[in-house]
Amino acid sequence: MGLVVRSVKNFALIGVGGFVAPRHLAAIAETGNRLVAACDPHDSVGVMDRTFPEARFFTEIERFDRYLEKLRRQGDGERVGVISICSPNYLHDAHVRLALRVGADAICEKPLVINPWNLDQLEALEDESPGRVYTVLQLRLVDSLRKLRDEVRASPARHDVELTYVTRRGRWYDASWKGSGEKSGGLVMNIGVHLLDLLLWIFGPASRVEVHVAERARAAGFMELERADVRWFLSVDPVDLPEPVRAAGGHALRSMRVGAREVDFSEGFGELHTEVYRRTLAGEGYRIADARPSIELAYRIRTAAPGPDAERTHPFVRRP
Amino acid sequence: MGLVVRSVKNFALIGVGGFVAPRHLAAIAETGNRLVAACDPHDSVGVMDRTFPEARFFTEIERFDRYLEKLRRQGDGERVGVISICSPNYLHDAHVRLALRVGADAICEKPLVINPWNLDQLEALEDESPGRVYTVLQLRLVDSLRKLRDEVRASPARHDVELTYVTRRGRWYDASWKGSGEKSGGLVMNIGVHLLDLLLWIFGPASRVEVHVAERARAAGFMELERADVRWFLSVDPVDLPEPVRAAGGHALRSMRVGAREVDFSEGFGELHTEVYRRTLAGEGYRIADARPSIELAYRIRTAAPGPDAERTHPFVRRP
Amino acid sequence: MGLVVRSVKNFALIGVGGFVAPRHLAAIAETGNRLVAACDPHDSVGVMDRTFPEARFFTEIERFDRYLEKLRRQGDGERVGVISICSPNYLHDAHVRLALRVGADAICEKPLVINPWNLDQLEALEDESPGRVYTVLQLRLVDSLRKLRDEVRASPARHDVELTYVTRRGRWYDASWKGSGEKSGGLVMNIGVHLLDLLLWIFGPASRVEVHVAERARAAGFMELERADVRWFLSVDPVDLPEPVRAAGGHALRSMRVGAREVDFSEGFGELHTEVYRRTLAGEGYRIADARPSIELAYRIRTAAPGPDAERTHPFVRRP
Amino acid sequence: MGLVVRSVKNFALIGVGGFVAPRHLAAIAETGNRLVAACDPHDSVGVMDRTFPEARFFTEIERFDRYLEKLRRQGDGERVGVISICSPNYLHDAHVRLALRVGADAICEKPLVINPWNLDQLEALEDESPGRVYTVLQLRLVDSLRKLRDEVRASPARHDVELTYVTRRGRWYDASWKGSGEKSGGLVMNIGVHLLDLLLWIFGPASRVEVHVAERARAAGFMELERADVRWFLSVDPVDLPEPVRAAGGHALRSMRVGAREVDFSEGFGELHTEVYRRTLAGEGYRIADARPSIELAYRIRTAAPGPDAERTHPFVRRP
Repeated sequence: MGLVVRSVKNFALIGVGGFVAPRHLAAIAETGNRLVAACDPHDSVGVMDRTFPEARFFTEIERFDRYLEKLRRQGDGERVGVISICSPNYLHDAHVRLALRVGADAICEKPLVINPWNLDQLEALEDESPGRVYTVLQLRLVDSLRKLRDEVRASPARHDVELTYVTRRGRWYDASWKGSGEKSGGLVMNIGVHLLDLLLWIFGPASRVEVHVAERARAAGFMELERADVRWFLSVDPVDLPEPVRAAGGHALRSMRVGAREVDFSEGFGELHTEVYRRTLAGEGYRIADARPSIELAYRIRTAAPGPDAERTHPFVRRP
Repeated sequence: MGLVVRSVKNFALIGVGGFVAPRHLAAIAETGNRLVAACDPHDSVGVMDRTFPEARFFTEIERFDRYLEKLRRQGDGERVGVISICSPNYLHDAHVRLALRVGADAICEKPLVINPWNLDQLEALEDESPGRVYTVLQLRLVDSLRKLRDEVRASPARHDVELTYVTRRGRWYDASWKGSGEKSGGLVMNIGVHLLDLLLWIFGPASRVEVHVAERARAAGFMELERADVRWFLSVDPVDLPEPVRAAGGHALRSMRVGAREVDFSEGFGELHTEVYRRTLAGEGYRIADARPSIELAYRIRTAAPGPDAERTHPFVRRP
Repeated sequence: MGLVVRSVKNFALIGVGGFVAPRHLAAIAETGNRLVAACDPHDSVGVMDRTFPEARFFTEIERFDRYLEKLRRQGDGERVGVISICSPNYLHDAHVRLALRVGADAICEKPLVINPWNLDQLEALEDESPGRVYTVLQLRLVDSLRKLRDEVRASPARHDVELTYVTRRGRWYDASWKGSGEKSGGLVMNIGVHLLDLLLWIFGPASRVEVHVAERARAAGFMELERADVRWFLSVDPVDLPEPVRAAGGHALRSMRVGAREVDFSEGFGELHTEVYRRTLAGEGYRIADARPSIELAYRIRTAAPGPDAERTHPFVRRP
Repeated sequence: MGLVVRSVKNFALIGVGGFVAPRHLAAIAETGNRLVAACDPHDSVGVMDRTFPEARFFTEIERFDRYLEKLRRQGDGERVGVISICSPNYLHDAHVRLALRVGADAICEKPLVINPWNLDQLEALEDESPGRVYTVLQLRLVDSLRKLRDEVRASPARHDVELTYVTRRGRWYDASWKGSGEKSGGLVMNIGVHLLDLLLWIFGPASRVEVHVAERARAAGFMELERADVRWFLSVDPVDLPEPVRAAGGHALRSMRVGAREVDFSEGFGELHTEVYRRTLAGEGYRIADARPSIELAYRIRTAAPGPDAERTHPFVRRP
């Protein structure tokens, strides 16, 4: 009977100074792999001490690239097999290209791109390259949501869904790249894409799409999906937090109502990166084709003119 | 009789994207004050969400300055009373000047400056300004160290002291401003200044100063203080961690032996910023004159030629 | 009988890596003064070799400030008397404040600010400071324009004016700070403010203001001034260059028609900085109050809703 | 008897905000080609207006790369054939890799790399790529130097050569990337490599190499080449300019004495880029193998310990 020797993979990471990097570092460590290099223009990266003090660190992407190229030339034991990407959204596809060009796979934070046509470019480059492009769609790994999906898919019934997602962000948000439509893709792309992916994955593709609110800090609309009518509301403005939540000191409201039933999905934010890595390394990661529907839908919503003749609006949409 | 109304002070903070900022934010919150503005060239500052989501955030010091100036013109309720400074060391004195010029006090991370002559400049500007300059010397607030100081000062006896401070830093450290002598002042100024302040504060001023090791990641020497002979060793290189520490998964060794007795001071790293703020706001903060001796000593050590004819070396100093 | 010794003044300059810096360097040299320090985040500043190789250079405003403060403490012979400011528009007022705070005068490129209310702040700070704030309004020094102004002011007659200003900018313009409304103030503030100042200075204050075109690269409108009705057109888009200009290889059309007469003002772009400096150093520089009307008018135009019911439109305004 | 249609090539350029960019822009224009994209972190690039206003401009290398990749996918008429590289020295090889990866040739400023081993990496990548790597060695095109080379090579005689190169740089030089050994390779690599290439190209390979002075702003040494003994002196410090040069208002001394004869090579600085481009586009450009000897020699000099037992020193070397 064969002896299975699972080899340790060399990882590199782009965006190690950012908010979501610690989850990727933990996922690399917890899947038994090794970080050999990291990059960020910001050099406050003491977070590396905990898990990978031996990893090289670069503040310039060019020097990072030189090091990866050098490792590639040194051969199999040295070369980087996977690059984890958690840079600002508008740089994701450039960093995925970097990964493919040094022969590595990419595991890229969502959204893979902020303009859908760049997915075509990535797919074409992936075809020419030995590496594969994976993305992080961790909500699909939440047990309660998987069960819901199985149920929904088991019958042709249509559902009435109300999705409410309010999460407070401070005023810094607007002064950061996240507040720049050009760099983050805007609220619906940056935060909403998670929810859109979830809805499409559970209830099937969208036909009709209405947008009722399209503000910088708030968006809402209605969608007809294959198996559901969905009224959705998304906000980072604390004024949209219901009074009871605020009274309890809470900063977020995440609710999905399917018919009369409330489905919890708060688990999915934060703790699932290791599981995403495990599946990806086992060959079951989400690929460009998996990311495409929600990115195309987010783009469609982002560029739609909000209609004054809304048919069904989310109850949080305030009317003057 | 009198009714005491303790007013809430407006704070601003420079360096909110950095490592030590969370302690300052917590100290501002825990002393019942309010952050109204923060600045950092790096915009990954979600840390502000927890305590001060309402604070303005700026990535450019010029815009931050404009906002502070505007608040100053708006009068007493609006103006910023204190600016907390946790930017890279080489910018500390410039940011203290900014605070003084908008009429605010400064609470500045150590070291206040990396070249001692800039203290004179700060003192002169402080004399012309309504604001005061305070620094963070939190080790002086550790109970065990205060007791030790009282004992030492109560008798003229001289002590034999061995100070060992090894704390692992990853390879990123060298690629960051902390690894640049020009920006951090080097290891002895950046990390050692804490310990030098402690020694001078407990055992009195230095007469003889020998330097035995002066490497990028490691320094050692001998000092004759008023009431102690001190052999000291400072390193961020993990090879200097004793095997038992490493075996236990530890990343740091912090030891001060006074005669036969081990004095614990690990408590002082991390949890004392709120207490520093409390005292400073009560008018008992540490001032430029308090910071000066350790900065001058660190500078003296940093610029000394390491002597080959060392008299008493720390046991960790490896001989070829 | 006294002997007049004209002393050499120490200058510093902010924005030495930019487009307009060479004119300021030349003006400093040609008025017999000396540059002692310069600052720019961009370090491609070989331009300094020609005139002031001895000047210190800094890439960080904080270090520049430290050096100026040090010179200030060293006394009269050393301190900087004037700071020339040619940084991006949105930083002008912050850099003027820096000048005032180190006790220097400021000679600042136009526009002094991009939001008029910041002029109040500057005036208040100027009142508290020994230094004065000057700006560069070089078109007012063009001989032909001075003569026109004298004529216009000599009689109460009203004039019919058509101002056309088309100057090609490459596509880089949009990707630079000049293309960002937030950083440059937009086309009318960044380029138009020159022309508005000229019109107000010659023909008196504006009553009625219509805006007909308000695009990123093109603006037009109509103004009723005290002594003129003005139709104006401003563009950086090469498609607005008349065919004869393009055929002749030209890149700009600068035309002011007053009644039937064409007034040349092309001289005013480029060669008048030395004269501006000479007057300013002689106590005849333009001050905040001089800059205010055109900045307020530019702001008014920039924030006006372009009206569809235009009364008199410039002939270059294309109608669909 | 075919008809030769010389097609216009699409160029892109990295470093368009820098000192040497105008020569490359001119060379692209004068060889009848077209710039379609340029990149520089600094956005003061009005220089593009003169020649290529239609070219796209990017301040981030990632977005520049995205655009090049997009053009590549659009096919032959759109794709970029050549990337001109005039970024800071330490980024040259990364930008050459970028060129090769998008299928373009690279025309790279000297020095191609600052550490010779990176040449191996570039050669390996060039072997895998359709593009070629060219460098700018414009002194080899100076007529007087070509003649000298022919003469020298025509006979086995050895020559006595004294090379003196003093060119004043202001104090800004040290505060820029050019003054950083890590980024420019230091004086001998950044400026001297031109002269070393010239000497090796004319007089053949070096055997003995002595270094007499190795300061930040000044270097000198002696070399035994195949057909010459060379004493050389290189400085950017104005104190090394002979009094007559300074009295005449000069800022540079460039002298090569071969035996009793003075050879002029000042022509080679500035005006030869177009000729370099012409030859390169005709397939006669200088390749990695041509650049290697001078880079290896510069590196050898840069890392040599200056010997106190110098045999033959340049007369400018001052003895204490």
